[in-house]
Amino acid sequence: MQPTSKTTPSRLAKRTRHDEEAIYAILDEALFCTVSCVIDGQPFAIPTAFARYGNYVYIHGSVGSHFIRAIENGAPVCISVMLTDALVVAKSAFSHSVNYRSVIMFSSAEKVEAYHPKAEALKWITEKIVPNSWDYLRPMTESEVRKTTVLAFKIEEASAKYRTGMPNDEAEDKALPIWSGLIPLRTIRAAPLADDSSQSLPLPAHLIPSDISI
Amino acid sequence: MQPTSKTTPSRLAKRTRHDEEAIYAILDEALFCTVSCVIDGQPFAIPTAFARYGNYVYIHGSVGSHFIRAIENGAPVCISVMLTDALVVAKSAFSHSVNYRSVIMFSSAEKVEAYHPKAEALKWITEKIVPNSWDYLRPMTESEVRKTTVLAFKIEEASAKYRTGMPNDEAEDKALPIWSGLIPLRTIRAAPLADDSSQSLPLPAHLIPSDISI
Repeated sequence: MQPTSKTTPSRLAKRTRHDEEAIYAILDEALFCTVSCVIDGQPFAIPTAFARYGNYVYIHGSVGSHFIRAIENGAPVCISVMLTDALVVAKSAFSHSVNYRSVIMFSSAEKVEAYHPKAEALKWITEKIVPNSWDYLRPMTESEVRKTTVLAFKIEEASAKYRTGMPNDEAEDKALPIWSGLIPLRTIRAAPLADDSSQSLPLPAHLIPSDISI
Repeated sequence: MQPTSKTTPSRLAKRTRHDEEAIYAILDEALFCTVSCVIDGQPFAIPTAFARYGNYVYIHGSVGSHFIRAIENGAPVCISVMLTDALVVAKSAFSHSVNYRSVIMFSSAEKVEAYHPKAEALKWITEKIVPNSWDYLRPMTESEVRKTTVLAFKIEEASAKYRTGMPNDEAEDKALPIWSGLIPLRTIRAAPLADDSSQSLPLPAHLIPSDISI
């Protein structure tokens, strides 16, 4: 998408991408984002689950939430996401870094009011967190849909930033006998823990751990 | 610390704490935070490494960074941190949740100008990311300290929020034969990968994996 003044980096432009493929891939892998807004001139931010569908990001919250009410009418928001792939351990502290993939997007909420699109968006968010679970769950009721606010944010002013690869030590440091390299970070889903009501129930196929990173 | 209008939740007050012990523990475990600010009335946010020392949070950045320049003179910021402990899988999508520990704090930057406090703060940030590494690294130079901006944010308006425990399904759902429980999330440091310059160097003791969560 078209870079704007807000999505053009002041530094390290080569680490920035504006294409949908890069932006969508990061949004689809991350389970949580941080939504920032301005209330009475002050910055506010809240971490939340989300899902991307098409060229929109969807979040949900209680209709009573102070934060949701502050942004549901279209106030400008900044949505940020970061995936951390490795700690980059150099020979000097100055050259330390992090291998990450991040997205920053600027948008404003479109409130999803119609019943079926709203229920559908709640399905996308649920299935993002626990893939293939929707049809297994007790069906959502109309009352539950009514008690939830769903907000859609068009992805049109956004950029992806990332760092990959080994440390970039200064030329004069490269021969120092100091270990440098990467410490990969992995987020994993561990073995499910059943609650009291589920001790005798079989674990459904979609919850069997695959040891893949989330 | 004293709750304010910004750190008093609109909902779920029982999940909120204002004591330093709770707030500091989350800040000390998280490696990254999101710093949000207001630029020309618009929300901006950036994820970054940080360290807590005493009742301050420290971040660093290039002196040329647009974002650092926007906040270094004391503009209000919101710093948010989230640790995710488990996906809470209920019998209905509506009762799904996340076990998390988060901190939201409101503050403004105090620029650390004096050489030794600035170098010390860079040590705290480095040691937070890679504990016990500072003395092993090539010492930081005066020029490197000068090229870096360090900002300190007093922790005085902050709250910790968290969710723990099993799903809270509706009473009428508890007998349904639908599996419910937790999927724990773990972030781990995997085995270090040496770069070309370090293939024949021993891995220093502080980098030997302990398989603990970060």
